Amino acid sequence: MKKLESRNPNFKAYVELMISRNKFMNWMGLVMTKIEAGYLEGELDFKDTLEQQNGWLHGGATATILDMIQGFASYSMVEEGQKVFTVEAKVSYFNPGDAQKFYARGGVIKPGKRFHFCEAEIYYLKNGEEVIVAKGSATMAVITSP
Amino acid sequence: MKKLESRNPNFKAYVELMISRNKFMNWMGLVMTKIEAGYLEGELDFKDTLEQQNGWLHGGATATILDMIQGFASYSMVEEGQKVFTVEAKVSYFNPGDAQKFYARGGVIKPGKRFHFCEAEIYYLKNGEEVIVAKGSATMAVITSP
Amino acid sequence: MKKLESRNPNFKAYVELMISRNKFMNWMGLVMTKIEAGYLEGELDFKDTLEQQNGWLHGGATATILDMIQGFASYSMVEEGQKVFTVEAKVSYFNPGDAQKFYARGGVIKPGKRFHFCEAEIYYLKNGEEVIVAKGSATMAVITSP
Amino acid sequence: MKKLESRNPNFKAYVELMISRNKFMNWMGLVMTKIEAGYLEGELDFKDTLEQQNGWLHGGATATILDMIQGFASYSMVEEGQKVFTVEAKVSYFNPGDAQKFYARGGVIKPGKRFHFCEAEIYYLKNGEEVIVAKGSATMAVITSP
Repeated sequence: MKKLESRNPNFKAYVELMISRNKFMNWMGLVMTKIEAGYLEGELDFKDTLEQQNGWLHGGATATILDMIQGFASYSMVEEGQKVFTVEAKVSYFNPGDAQKFYARGGVIKPGKRFHFCEAEIYYLKNGEEVIVAKGSATMAVITSP
Repeated sequence: MKKLESRNPNFKAYVELMISRNKFMNWMGLVMTKIEAGYLEGELDFKDTLEQQNGWLHGGATATILDMIQGFASYSMVEEGQKVFTVEAKVSYFNPGDAQKFYARGGVIKPGKRFHFCEAEIYYLKNGEEVIVAKGSATMAVITSP
Repeated sequence: MKKLESRNPNFKAYVELMISRNKFMNWMGLVMTKIEAGYLEGELDFKDTLEQQNGWLHGGATATILDMIQGFASYSMVEEGQKVFTVEAKVSYFNPGDAQKFYARGGVIKPGKRFHFCEAEIYYLKNGEEVIVAKGSATMAVITSP
Repeated sequence: MKKLESRNPNFKAYVELMISRNKFMNWMGLVMTKIEAGYLEGELDFKDTLEQQNGWLHGGATATILDMIQGFASYSMVEEGQKVFTVEAKVSYFNPGDAQKFYARGGVIKPGKRFHFCEAEIYYLKNGEEVIVAKGSATMAVITSP
């Protein structure tokens, strides 16, 4: 992912403020471990409440995690006070989320004034190798609130 | 949505069994109110834990609800013992999820032996009118377990 | 599809002007047979140049037709002089495009100031029944040129 | 893109055979310049017939090119005689296709027995720098013909 520059010199604090307000993400237990301009990494410890019917990470939880990486990476690329909304997001599911710990990473692959195009993936480690659970792409709208 | 016929005469019990095992959906509070061959309806009472940063229904919760409608509608169209997995899903976000109660509906729009193509939407009621929050489409794989 | 009202009373002439400039669509032979506010229908006679490797309608031609229906339905919903660009489009392929004549229809399912969300499908007739070849969804951006 | 190994030792000849039968791609003028296991590169000289209403490369032509890269990269990863069909494809449009020559590249990012997940992008060169026109992702089904 190409290095980007943010329009907001205080993007990290702005993203952290938004994250602190995101109750669903915080309930889920997703923790962002890296916040750069247009790029984020996060981690999640699996818990039973996140299971689908086979005992694996629910596809909706996967979609949520990818949305958070992409959405907050977009928040890191807007001006203070601007908001970001998901216009649309696609998720492709590569492997069952059969692990106790998950990692996510991704961000803005094409920034813009009106939208940011984003990508992110979620994976776990098996014998030191990454197993990709899912990959997502999304369009994020940049909105200037009145 | 066209009326479909299921390969499984006991599809309703099979779907209900799968739903009972889906811990994330049950934690979230999504309740299926109609289970027909290839078509489901559900309801969700909003709760604080499902909030994104502006206090509205989280896009990841929205994606989860659409995935459940589409996934279990697909489960209603397979043989007893077969499993369904989401191959990919796209969600388009039309309006903020700013309500206390949400409704979802949708199902299989093109059934097949190997996959079912699905669509679903989530909406709330405002002065008796439906406000569509999001619409999703997905490809569901039909897997015969060994 | 819900009846929509256009911001442009002369939307039909505006859409027809844009269509006349679209060389790829005109080369392909797609003809719009109905142009309403936010809704279009079209027809295409198959020709050999549109074949993929099995002799059926190429998936890229299918994507083009859906894009034209969705894009020009969006053009019917903007002001004179505004432009429309495809932000993203997804196509799901239901059945092989094995016919001599194809029909397409669709349009704006959620209009907006900044984007229109659209859907369209392409089908052929077999013994009087519609066979859906593909269904698409797209986000169209509305741009005010300087 | 990770290096992949094909199930078919003669994959290059098999892909070239399929390409030779693809009339729409050949009419368009897309030429594959590299065919590796799960990875392809191609080039296209712009021509007027490929224009949309502003004189740029038509989004449908873009979608076709991405589909060809992803589809034939998938053909390189199946057994002799197996076929590949696009299940669904999404394209995100980053920049207008305003150039005289276009380049495309991409392939299989997650191979499988039943489907290959693919990605591809199309770009042009401006002062030696790549300008990405569009990026696509697709699910390709692997079919064993009877």
